[in-house]
Amino acid sequence: MSATVVHEDMGTRVEQTLRTRFAHHSTTAEAYGPEFAALWRAAADHALGGKLVRPRLLLDMHRALAAETESEPTPAAVDVATYVELLHYAFLLHDDVIDGDLTRRRRPNLIGAIAASALGTTEEASLHWARSSAILMGDLLLTAAVMGFARADLPTDARTRLLDLIEETIVETVAGEHTDVALSHGIVAPELTTVLNMSVYKTATYSFSLPLRAAAILAGATASAEETLTAAGRHLGLAYQLQDDLLCVFGDHRSHGKDAFSDLREGKETAIIAFARSTTEWDAISAHFGSPDLSLRRATGIRDRLRACGAERFVTGVINDQIEAVHTLLADAARTGDITAEAARTILVLVDRLEGRTA
Amino acid sequence: MSATVVHEDMGTRVEQTLRTRFAHHSTTAEAYGPEFAALWRAAADHALGGKLVRPRLLLDMHRALAAETESEPTPAAVDVATYVELLHYAFLLHDDVIDGDLTRRRRPNLIGAIAASALGTTEEASLHWARSSAILMGDLLLTAAVMGFARADLPTDARTRLLDLIEETIVETVAGEHTDVALSHGIVAPELTTVLNMSVYKTATYSFSLPLRAAAILAGATASAEETLTAAGRHLGLAYQLQDDLLCVFGDHRSHGKDAFSDLREGKETAIIAFARSTTEWDAISAHFGSPDLSLRRATGIRDRLRACGAERFVTGVINDQIEAVHTLLADAARTGDITAEAARTILVLVDRLEGRTA
Repeated sequence: MSATVVHEDMGTRVEQTLRTRFAHHSTTAEAYGPEFAALWRAAADHALGGKLVRPRLLLDMHRALAAETESEPTPAAVDVATYVELLHYAFLLHDDVIDGDLTRRRRPNLIGAIAASALGTTEEASLHWARSSAILMGDLLLTAAVMGFARADLPTDARTRLLDLIEETIVETVAGEHTDVALSHGIVAPELTTVLNMSVYKTATYSFSLPLRAAAILAGATASAEETLTAAGRHLGLAYQLQDDLLCVFGDHRSHGKDAFSDLREGKETAIIAFARSTTEWDAISAHFGSPDLSLRRATGIRDRLRACGAERFVTGVINDQIEAVHTLLADAARTGDITAEAARTILVLVDRLEGRTA
Repeated sequence: MSATVVHEDMGTRVEQTLRTRFAHHSTTAEAYGPEFAALWRAAADHALGGKLVRPRLLLDMHRALAAETESEPTPAAVDVATYVELLHYAFLLHDDVIDGDLTRRRRPNLIGAIAASALGTTEEASLHWARSSAILMGDLLLTAAVMGFARADLPTDARTRLLDLIEETIVETVAGEHTDVALSHGIVAPELTTVLNMSVYKTATYSFSLPLRAAAILAGATASAEETLTAAGRHLGLAYQLQDDLLCVFGDHRSHGKDAFSDLREGKETAIIAFARSTTEWDAISAHFGSPDLSLRRATGIRDRLRACGAERFVTGVINDQIEAVHTLLADAARTGDITAEAARTILVLVDRLEGRTA
């Protein structure tokens, strides 16, 4: 069986498990009335549309760390992988409430869909209904995720490690989101270090370190292997986030999902902007940075200044530093035998994807 | 040692444990910057101001069900009691975000306090910052509560029962809150049954049934004892909620914490209103029900009509039905020996408090 076929199988198993779980929740919800059941079904529609990158990463790494390669993933691993996805979706929901977003990847998100279907009320009322529903569904999915980790069918020691992991992950992600909101209101100064830390906390920790560490715990890997994967996850996650930031400003908007220059319109405090603030171009950039009605011409002008002031080059350099750091970690791990060669290859696949990424 | 002294001791132990736990979270939070640590400290200030009725109820019932009465509560019972309080506070925070409330019992709540301290920004920005912080702190406390149940130092069977209990509780409470929001937007019709069920789900389940059931599980009581307490908790919780509704409209506003007639100003769909809708007084009541700027004179007029149409008498009757149902449950339990006489007395104390209540 080729690696790709195994990968597809895992994705299918995760999706099936998620589908079954959402169906179960929707059925239980019927007891509380049709509106509550409808909320669960709407959440399922939106949550199941994803690419399942986090569960796939967990299962790929689990297979790579397990003694017999290409073996079927254990039911516990598939379970935990799906709970990682539910946690991701819980974070997305509360993030969308906080950011006031009604779309994701150019399609209505859960909030946008609920607001659009609440007929016969004012726009304010339908948005309130939709956002309240998203806060509550986020609470349900957050609970389901933690509960899933708590109930994992594993030896006590492994379950304890998984519980510590998910708690640490939630605290760190929430801290990152809190800093992001503080940055957007100017409550925290947009220092480069603050912005980079925020990106690690808000995104890298739960999207990369969490699945990699959970895989290590599930495969019975050593604490030292888990540490290597934690660090690799942070570097990779930061690199992916920085690349997202670059794509939004400098990328080809036909090939990636975000609206052209949306970060510039929203005044998002990215590493690109944090760097630009320290340059002589900032005065000209800041005049229109964060205008909701920024024209394409003005946005292109800002983009050119961000390039001219060295911000693009600087952030590309930080991404390369992260890749370099991952290679160093893998070289050390190869020397000590910390992780399997297959596990190192799984990390390298992520590095490769990063390098060829346009969307 | 008298019962009152034991009760005081338990309250102090719960408060000490909560204080220590918040201090620990605040210290851990420092790693993510001073703003995040400040959020934890502010949450501690607000969460520690409560009367701890839920943890006290849990510990009272635990003592009453335990084999040796007047023994010290076990560390696990104190722990679980504090996590019940954290869950309560998590619900309050998200509830306040959804309701747009900035005060609780006439003092600024966490959102009001954060918004007031966010100087140098617009009102809209400071409210956004405060509400985003409350969403995030609610997530942290919800996680802490579930995590606490998952980590309870108990035999596997008891821990599994506790996990099922907290999951069921969260789902039911969220379903109740969702219905409450749906009622406020007219998305769900304000039928009396819907409003009564909503009150049970949103309040009784986590405020009464949860502490009583957790006590039963911690004391090793039978499943049948747990069922009796679940039912008693629902009846008591509904009675307290209905009494709250009555006090807000017909009570002495100098002695209870709520603003005079706030439910009438907010257009809250209570059982009083659901009953009144079916009477000939409704046309006159509905003309001003839900006006944010309802004058004292008009509010008094609505109150008189709610009395005249029989809504006060009806809701008082529903409360009496709940008390009656509790007495029946206790009589059955006494016959079967389901719960101890001391446990029945603990329930009767709650009934007594209900009957003499003015605030």
